[in-house]
Amino acid sequence: METQIKPSPAAILQIGTGFWASKTLLTAVNMNLFTLLANGEKSGQDIQAKLGLHNRSLYDFLDALVALGFLSRTGIKETAVYKNTEDTNLFLDKNKPSYIGGILEMANNRLYPFWNDLEEGLKTGLPQNESKNNGQPPFELIYADPAKLSEFIHAMAGVQTGNFITFSKEFDFSNYKTLCDIGGSGGHFSAHIVMNNPHIHCTSFDLLPVEPIAKDIINTMNLSDNVTLASGDFFEDDFPKADIITMGNVLHDWGEQDKLMLIEKAYRALPIGGALVVIENIIDDARSKNAFGLLMSLNMLIETEKGFDFTFEDFNKWTKQVGFKSTTLLPLAGPASAAIAYK
Amino acid sequence: METQIKPSPAAILQIGTGFWASKTLLTAVNMNLFTLLANGEKSGQDIQAKLGLHNRSLYDFLDALVALGFLSRTGIKETAVYKNTEDTNLFLDKNKPSYIGGILEMANNRLYPFWNDLEEGLKTGLPQNESKNNGQPPFELIYADPAKLSEFIHAMAGVQTGNFITFSKEFDFSNYKTLCDIGGSGGHFSAHIVMNNPHIHCTSFDLLPVEPIAKDIINTMNLSDNVTLASGDFFEDDFPKADIITMGNVLHDWGEQDKLMLIEKAYRALPIGGALVVIENIIDDARSKNAFGLLMSLNMLIETEKGFDFTFEDFNKWTKQVGFKSTTLLPLAGPASAAIAYK
Repeated sequence: METQIKPSPAAILQIGTGFWASKTLLTAVNMNLFTLLANGEKSGQDIQAKLGLHNRSLYDFLDALVALGFLSRTGIKETAVYKNTEDTNLFLDKNKPSYIGGILEMANNRLYPFWNDLEEGLKTGLPQNESKNNGQPPFELIYADPAKLSEFIHAMAGVQTGNFITFSKEFDFSNYKTLCDIGGSGGHFSAHIVMNNPHIHCTSFDLLPVEPIAKDIINTMNLSDNVTLASGDFFEDDFPKADIITMGNVLHDWGEQDKLMLIEKAYRALPIGGALVVIENIIDDARSKNAFGLLMSLNMLIETEKGFDFTFEDFNKWTKQVGFKSTTLLPLAGPASAAIAYK
Repeated sequence: METQIKPSPAAILQIGTGFWASKTLLTAVNMNLFTLLANGEKSGQDIQAKLGLHNRSLYDFLDALVALGFLSRTGIKETAVYKNTEDTNLFLDKNKPSYIGGILEMANNRLYPFWNDLEEGLKTGLPQNESKNNGQPPFELIYADPAKLSEFIHAMAGVQTGNFITFSKEFDFSNYKTLCDIGGSGGHFSAHIVMNNPHIHCTSFDLLPVEPIAKDIINTMNLSDNVTLASGDFFEDDFPKADIITMGNVLHDWGEQDKLMLIEKAYRALPIGGALVVIENIIDDARSKNAFGLLMSLNMLIETEKGFDFTFEDFNKWTKQVGFKSTTLLPLAGPASAAIAYK
């Protein structure tokens, strides 16, 4: 007659309510809480005054961030003093170049509400962002404002830093001298490559408005002898010739036809023995493990006309089709990998 | 000159994009995917046809659910056959009484968009649900429709089953004969108590529209000799007298004044030595570990006028104030506990 606990709905409920933790962190980023605390620890009352928060849920909000691991605290409630953790102090302080909050502000203000229309996206195959109402995604606005563009470029780099460094250290650069990073943004990937492999010369290739920001970054790092900047449009222009062509989170934005066109441009820019390196959240071939890669592909549904993430097997098929001889996969930080094709 | 990977923004990005996994699961529940698959495994094409899905992201959606652990699969893409897991087959099939999807449908259609206004809630202290536009929360509609009410009651019970069973087995009932469950809903908690402790007689107390549904549940389980149903309003009426008074997820809906009023009614209904048992996501006293309890409290901001979740220390203070002699805390399933006060 006794009743039994298993099976349990715990995992279903945890993921089903996962948007609570998500929105709590995103809201804190959006209100610049971590930037405020980067100037020094603050009492709950000070935070309340600075952010204009109501009494009712002040401590629930701040203590939820403590429990999630994004703040630390001494005291409690009226005696509480809150402090950033090492991670939030480095990555969520707007005044540091390592700030990645630009991505999270975008997630808070755009992606969170757009993802509410996932069901419509799945039924129509159409993006669910500003384009639904004939609006422009904010990238045009970002590109028109150098300050916004700079913040966005640093945020993208912050997200990718682990991948950039792992690849720079683990890939065998010994047979190569030159590298061109297509969609190189602020030049951070090139910077990590030359710092960890001083015999390599990098070219960072991106749209013209990006160049002054990249120049600033590369000059500040004293790497202008090792990293050249080149401006162009990868749809209009051929790729600069190099021993290695890299593309980080570029291919997943586009449909299969454009993916093939970009892979073919890489092939033409490489010498025999040269390498194409694609860094993305490559989905495992069984499509049953890399949840983040599969969810990123759904984000491409929300955000793009035809984009999707892909497996190493897909990469193999496309690169062989274009003429590459062999391929290999190098796992990087978390859900990301480098898919490599040799000409 | 080499660059280093640590610290890493991985935890920030994982929680910051956590709404992707959440919305993917909620969307699947909302489209009745798991109910469809409870009738037997289906190919991707069959699922596509039944749910009216577009080609573009069909397999990304289904395979994301595989990677998250909510579906299993043989074959891949065009040869894929999808199947519920044990958990999703039991808890997300609308045709089973164990269905908890009613809660998740509500999370998908109401809470997800309402939580987009968390920042406004934190700044104003006001709920961010239908009441913002002078609308009524859907509970009135649910109470007016016996089929909806029945589904809702089963869903709430499904969520709580682990807590009900753990408490029924771990609490020492030997000194007691009668129990009254305030806000007893479908009588599931009473049912688990009497099945695991046959010497106890339970009364399940809730609003009048709940009674026929509870009667059906108790009769089906052949427990009508052990469980009595009583109808009333815990704001208007005194509690039925019993050796143990229980309240599950009742107190967190209300402000401190109403919480005290309900605790006092429990005190008056108990004999000397009697026990008040409150089952909730009790926040740890340090308010730094039970993230789910703290986030549930933010959900009470979104959903109620004055509700909030609380610590065992808060419970101690309130129960002592009302006259209870001693208290103890019994951890239950996951983030939930039973806070117990003895008269």
